[in-house]
Amino acid sequence: MDETIRVGLEDLNGLSTRILTKSGFSDAHAGTISEMLSTCQIDDCHSHGLFRLLMCCQTMKAGKIDGRVLPVVAPSDSAIVRVDARGGMSLLAVAAAMPQLIEKTRKHGIAAMAVNRCFHFSALWPEVEQLSAAGLAGMAMVPSHSWVAPAGGKRGTLGTNPLAFSWPRQNQTPFTFDFATSGSARGEIELYLRAGKPLPEGVAVDAKGNPTTDPQAALDGAMLTFGGYKGSALSIMIELMAGPLIDDLTSLESMEFAEGAGGAPYHGEIILAFDPEHFSGGRVADNDTRAERLFADILDQGARLPSQRRFEARARNISRGYVEIPAGLYADLLGLLN
Amino acid sequence: MDETIRVGLEDLNGLSTRILTKSGFSDAHAGTISEMLSTCQIDDCHSHGLFRLLMCCQTMKAGKIDGRVLPVVAPSDSAIVRVDARGGMSLLAVAAAMPQLIEKTRKHGIAAMAVNRCFHFSALWPEVEQLSAAGLAGMAMVPSHSWVAPAGGKRGTLGTNPLAFSWPRQNQTPFTFDFATSGSARGEIELYLRAGKPLPEGVAVDAKGNPTTDPQAALDGAMLTFGGYKGSALSIMIELMAGPLIDDLTSLESMEFAEGAGGAPYHGEIILAFDPEHFSGGRVADNDTRAERLFADILDQGARLPSQRRFEARARNISRGYVEIPAGLYADLLGLLN
Repeated sequence: MDETIRVGLEDLNGLSTRILTKSGFSDAHAGTISEMLSTCQIDDCHSHGLFRLLMCCQTMKAGKIDGRVLPVVAPSDSAIVRVDARGGMSLLAVAAAMPQLIEKTRKHGIAAMAVNRCFHFSALWPEVEQLSAAGLAGMAMVPSHSWVAPAGGKRGTLGTNPLAFSWPRQNQTPFTFDFATSGSARGEIELYLRAGKPLPEGVAVDAKGNPTTDPQAALDGAMLTFGGYKGSALSIMIELMAGPLIDDLTSLESMEFAEGAGGAPYHGEIILAFDPEHFSGGRVADNDTRAERLFADILDQGARLPSQRRFEARARNISRGYVEIPAGLYADLLGLLN
Repeated sequence: MDETIRVGLEDLNGLSTRILTKSGFSDAHAGTISEMLSTCQIDDCHSHGLFRLLMCCQTMKAGKIDGRVLPVVAPSDSAIVRVDARGGMSLLAVAAAMPQLIEKTRKHGIAAMAVNRCFHFSALWPEVEQLSAAGLAGMAMVPSHSWVAPAGGKRGTLGTNPLAFSWPRQNQTPFTFDFATSGSARGEIELYLRAGKPLPEGVAVDAKGNPTTDPQAALDGAMLTFGGYKGSALSIMIELMAGPLIDDLTSLESMEFAEGAGGAPYHGEIILAFDPEHFSGGRVADNDTRAERLFADILDQGARLPSQRRFEARARNISRGYVEIPAGLYADLLGLLN
């Protein structure tokens, strides 16, 4: 990282909240967004930390989001809690429905949250980690915009479609992953273009569907999913689960809805939750030991668990009481307050 | 394929059942296994069709399986149906609990089946396609034996850990995939060894964890997951979901249990089911149209949907009334009847 600025942990929320309320978000929205950004920044998850304030403000400027609307949780006696974000940012809706999701999971053993009509910009891991912090396993999926070609295709149909999962470990940070099913981020390709460098192999196709390492040809064509036809199948599953299953948009439809406006995409989100107590017939402790043997065997051979670096960053930043962000970003953020 | 033999569709079940009952399976087990093998064979899914009769008989000879035991479905008022296969093959247990899984999914919107203490050899797609045939979406996962290294590792910890998903399309074959999270099948590596050919890149590591294309070094080392660290994370999720979550074995523990005996691995299985009616708030038809636009956009650019070849084979074989299997396999199968 270039020159950095220290931001005290106690100042993270305040800085974000001031920027967001000035931009047009209500206190309630600004609060949940700030909480998410701080959570990510404390883990040195820079791409989804304070940096995203720029995108939040851009989303507001694009004019489609409602920064003040309150989500509505639908009454439900099933194992599904549906929450309508009503054209606001997703986070307040998720926060409103999360207690019901946890309650329903403890009651039925398995439950789901469907979030509709939300703008979405955030990492999924903080949401599934709310579930693992409650002793539940969690899985989350969202579509995005159709920049990614299916295996064998030549144009964008699928989103970057992340999948996140968190597993509760007793007295430890959870096992968590959160990855895009695209092989790379769109922003990365733009960085290669600006640097005049060729892309790695296998990341993109040109407009004819041929593999390309030319960043401009890739932007004119499409990104690819990770892992070939398997990653492509997984990405289609995420479109279906977080789109048509829950009566919400696919990445294609979300892209159409945006009409070229920048900012966060508008679509739905699905979160699944699993109660180990129910599933294991009450044998959670034995099975925690079993899972720990699996993790130990992975670590013992020199491999890492996903999120390990993030948890190390969290411990370090909490212990020293501040995070470091690029000086340029800090200047840009202060600019948003003028 | 080399020389082939035609087997009439009406003879598929009978041939399998005779072989299985002679091997020691009860009529009930032989019936569900034969049904599965025929379903796969009719789709030209050769690796999981009649060929697997050899493995079923080998599993019986290995002496750990109970070929006659009846599964027990635990009473449940939650959204989880747990079925204990009691050391028998998985299929009879899945068949016993499937009606409850469907009923619970229609009642709660989301439900799950946990199958415990089963031997498992079969493709997962026929099970998730039972759900999509009932208008539900389905997802299934199993561990296997620990032949697959985690990303950054050098020895087997994970199984080939397949993930299957099926989505109901109105008046059409469903959208289904079923793939191993390992980059290749173990049998493929053995074929390269016998042929004296180098492996493709990125499939395996040697015992020191270095990439190798030498088949023997790969067998002494470990296979890799598909898709690098993302595929590895997904494979670990499958270990947890189909192992410790449901109080059953990881791939490491399943390998230990087998004590080198051949045949099908012994472990658990998890099947998740989702009711589009509940999740979409009753807007299934609209969302079917939405999903079809997604599929059309994939097909329109010359890409294929997963399972398309299989559905084409199904239509062809049903229309002509027979399947073709290798003559050598047919001879081997007749040998099992002597």
